[in-house]
Amino acid sequence: MRFSRQIISVEEALQRLLDSLPQLEEEQVGIRDAYGRILARDTMATCDLPPFDRSPLDGYAVRAADTLGASPEHPVSLQVVDTIAAGEVSRVPVTAGCAARIMTGAMIPQGADAVIMFEQTENPGLATDRVGVKRALRPGENVSRRGEEIPAGSVVANAGERINAGTIALLATFGYASVPVVRKPRVGLLATGTELVAVDQPLEPGKIRNSNTPMLSALIAEAGAIPVTFPVLPEDPAEAKRTLAAYAQEVDLLISSGGVSVGDFDVIASLTDEADVQLLFNRIAMRPGSPTTALLLAGKPVLALSGNPAACFVGFELFARPALSRLAGRKDAGHRFVKARLGASYDKPCPHPRYLRGRLTQEDGVLWALPDLNDKAGNLGTLKDSECLIVIPPGGRGKQAGERVDVLVHAVPGWQPRG
Amino acid sequence: MRFSRQIISVEEALQRLLDSLPQLEEEQVGIRDAYGRILARDTMATCDLPPFDRSPLDGYAVRAADTLGASPEHPVSLQVVDTIAAGEVSRVPVTAGCAARIMTGAMIPQGADAVIMFEQTENPGLATDRVGVKRALRPGENVSRRGEEIPAGSVVANAGERINAGTIALLATFGYASVPVVRKPRVGLLATGTELVAVDQPLEPGKIRNSNTPMLSALIAEAGAIPVTFPVLPEDPAEAKRTLAAYAQEVDLLISSGGVSVGDFDVIASLTDEADVQLLFNRIAMRPGSPTTALLLAGKPVLALSGNPAACFVGFELFARPALSRLAGRKDAGHRFVKARLGASYDKPCPHPRYLRGRLTQEDGVLWALPDLNDKAGNLGTLKDSECLIVIPPGGRGKQAGERVDVLVHAVPGWQPRG
Repeated sequence: MRFSRQIISVEEALQRLLDSLPQLEEEQVGIRDAYGRILARDTMATCDLPPFDRSPLDGYAVRAADTLGASPEHPVSLQVVDTIAAGEVSRVPVTAGCAARIMTGAMIPQGADAVIMFEQTENPGLATDRVGVKRALRPGENVSRRGEEIPAGSVVANAGERINAGTIALLATFGYASVPVVRKPRVGLLATGTELVAVDQPLEPGKIRNSNTPMLSALIAEAGAIPVTFPVLPEDPAEAKRTLAAYAQEVDLLISSGGVSVGDFDVIASLTDEADVQLLFNRIAMRPGSPTTALLLAGKPVLALSGNPAACFVGFELFARPALSRLAGRKDAGHRFVKARLGASYDKPCPHPRYLRGRLTQEDGVLWALPDLNDKAGNLGTLKDSECLIVIPPGGRGKQAGERVDVLVHAVPGWQPRG
Repeated sequence: MRFSRQIISVEEALQRLLDSLPQLEEEQVGIRDAYGRILARDTMATCDLPPFDRSPLDGYAVRAADTLGASPEHPVSLQVVDTIAAGEVSRVPVTAGCAARIMTGAMIPQGADAVIMFEQTENPGLATDRVGVKRALRPGENVSRRGEEIPAGSVVANAGERINAGTIALLATFGYASVPVVRKPRVGLLATGTELVAVDQPLEPGKIRNSNTPMLSALIAEAGAIPVTFPVLPEDPAEAKRTLAAYAQEVDLLISSGGVSVGDFDVIASLTDEADVQLLFNRIAMRPGSPTTALLLAGKPVLALSGNPAACFVGFELFARPALSRLAGRKDAGHRFVKARLGASYDKPCPHPRYLRGRLTQEDGVLWALPDLNDKAGNLGTLKDSECLIVIPPGGRGKQAGERVDVLVHAVPGWQPRG
C-alpha cells in the first residue's frame, strides 16, 4: 500500500476527517474563563435591555409639553425638584412646570417623558433651583425605552459561536456568571523520526531539533484545544502501533508529524496496511503534504501530518484547524476561501493543487495575496510570516501575477504593503 | 473644564497616549510559554539549517557520474552498500558503482553527490543488494545543502515581533529552550458608575450589570496583557482620586470606563481640573466616545473610556489596543487602515469622524465593509459581531453604499457573505 495509494481531493479528505470526529459534551465554566470557548447552547436575554426607561445623557428630565416654544432667546424656566444619579430610583414625580436633574443611565422619573441635555440649558454646570430650557422637545426625545435594545427572551448568541469580548459583555449584562460551553478538545501530539532531539538537547551529527511538536502545540492551543504532548514513538512497528493506540485513547484526536511517506521506517505508513486500522486517506491531490494520512485506530481519529515543517504547517491549516473547530462544536468548520489577486507569478507546473503560504494585503480595496515563493530555502524560516494559503490550481501554466486565486486566511492580516 | 474642553484629532490623541507609555523590561520564559509574547531581542540562527547535507526524500544516495545514460528502458545497476535512517551517520562511503539506501532527512554519505527517489528505481519497496536507477542525475540533485535554508548567524526573528507558531518552530530548531521576551504589561481595570452591579448580583430597580469590566478584561488578555481588575471607585472625588492613584501605581496602564462626561458624579471628569494631574486629552473629534480621556496621575498613564458599552469598545480598539501593543514592545503600534467599499449608505451628518463597527467581507477580491447601522438598538448586542471599525469622515453627506472608506480591522474576518 505504501507505493500504491488511492488519491483523493483536499475537500474530500477534509470531509472524511470531519465525519470521523466525535461530538464533545457540554460543561459549565465561570464567565472569567469563558473567553475563546464555544457556546454549547443558545443564550437568551434574561431581562429587557435597558431594564427600565433611562436617560442616555446628562441633563434634565422634563415634560415635553412644558418645553413648547422654548428657544435660546426665550428659554422656558422649570423648577428643579430632584437630582437623580445613575442607579437611583427617584421618589419625586416630575409634575407640570418641574424638571429633575438626571445623569446618564439613570431611570426616568415618574411624570417626565423627555430629557434635555445640559448643553441646551442655561448654566449647565450648576445644580440650581430653576433651569432654563433652550429648546422644545418631543415626547420620548432622549429617552431610552425599556427593552428597546434587546427585549427579554431574545436569543442573543447561538450555540456553536466562539465567545469573544463582545459575547462576554452580553453574558455579563444578562447575569450569566456561569456559561455552558463545549468541553475543550484534548489533542494528542507526537513526532516520529529517529533524527529528532528536543529543544534543550545538544545537536549531534545527523540530528535536528524537533520543531514540529512545539509548533503544533502552539497552533492547537491557539485553536482553543488542549495540546497533550506524547513522547516520540518507539521504532518497532508493532510496539509503535500499541503505543499509538494507547495514546489515542487518552485524547479526542491524535495528531502526529512525520512517518507518512515511503521510507523504510515510516511508522504511520506501515500502520495503514494493518487489518484493524480503518484508513480514511493516505494520499491527497495537493502539494506539499500529499502523503498526509488519517485513520481510525480502535475507533479513535489519528491525523498524520508530513514531517517537513512547511508541509506540516500547511497540513495543519488545511485539516487540523477545521477538525479542531468541528471538535469544539463550531458550525462553520469547513474552508472559507476568499478571492484575491496573486502578487507574483507562480510558473511551476503542478499536477495537483498547490497551497502556497503567503501574506494578505490590499491596494485601494482590492485584495492581493503575496506568495512566499522561496519554497525551498526558508521553508521553516518564513512560516512565521504566513497569514494565508494561496491555491495554485493544477495545470501546466501555474498562475500569473494579477490573476485571481482562491485564498484561505488563517491570521489577522498585518496588511503590510505589497512593495 | 468639564464643559470647555480642547478638542484634538484621534491620531493626535493616540500619539499623546503612546508617548506617555513606559518601556517595559525584558524577561526570560521557557519556549512552552513563549507563544503570543513579544521578542525582546533579535534572534540568531545558532547553526546552519540544515545542519548537514541531507536527503530531502526517500531513495538512494548515488554518485551522479554513475547514472549517466540511465533510463527506464536501460536502468543503471548499482550495488547497495548501506541503509541510512534519518538521524544516523553512515560509516560506509559510496564508491564508484555503489549506492546507499537513504531516508528523508538522513545525512548524505561520503562519496555520494545526488539522491534518486525510490519511485525512479526498480523495486522501490524492497531493500535489495542491487538497485536499478532509471534516470540520470546531475551532481547535487536532490541534496539539501548544509545552511541552504538558513545560514548560521542570520537574524531569523526581530525584537518587537509577536511570537506565533512559526516563530516557535524557529526557536525550537535553533535550541532556544529559553526565550527573551518583553514583560507582559499589567493593565489595571475599573468601572465607575453607581448604577453598576456585578454579574452574579441580582438586578435591583435602576441598576444594570457591569459589562464593561468583563469585556475589557477579555480584550486586554487577548491583546497579550495581564488584566488586573480593581473595585468600583468610591463616590467622594478626593477619595476616588487617592484610590485611583494607588491603583495606577500597581500597574503599567490603568483603564477605566465611565465617568468621563459632564455628569455631576463623573469622577474622571472631576480629576482633570486638579493641578497635579497632567491631562493628555479629554475631548476627541470622534463619535462615539468624544469625552474619552487620558491623563497622567503621579506619572502613571490612565486611559478613561466612555461608559456606554459600544463607545467603550470603540475606544478600546482605537486607543487601548495600540497602547497595549506599544507597551508590549511592538514596533507597529499605530493604526493601519485599509480601504474598502461601504456596504450600506450612512447618511447621518457627522461634525466629526464617526467610527462604525462592522464586518469585513469580499466579493471577487474586492473588500467590502458592512456597517452595523443599528447604532441605537443593539449597541451591546452586536459588539460580538464586530470585525472592524469603519471611518465615516466628517461632513454633511456621510458616505453612500459603494464609496471607498478607511477601515481598521481588529479580528480575523469571518468573510461572511454580504447578502
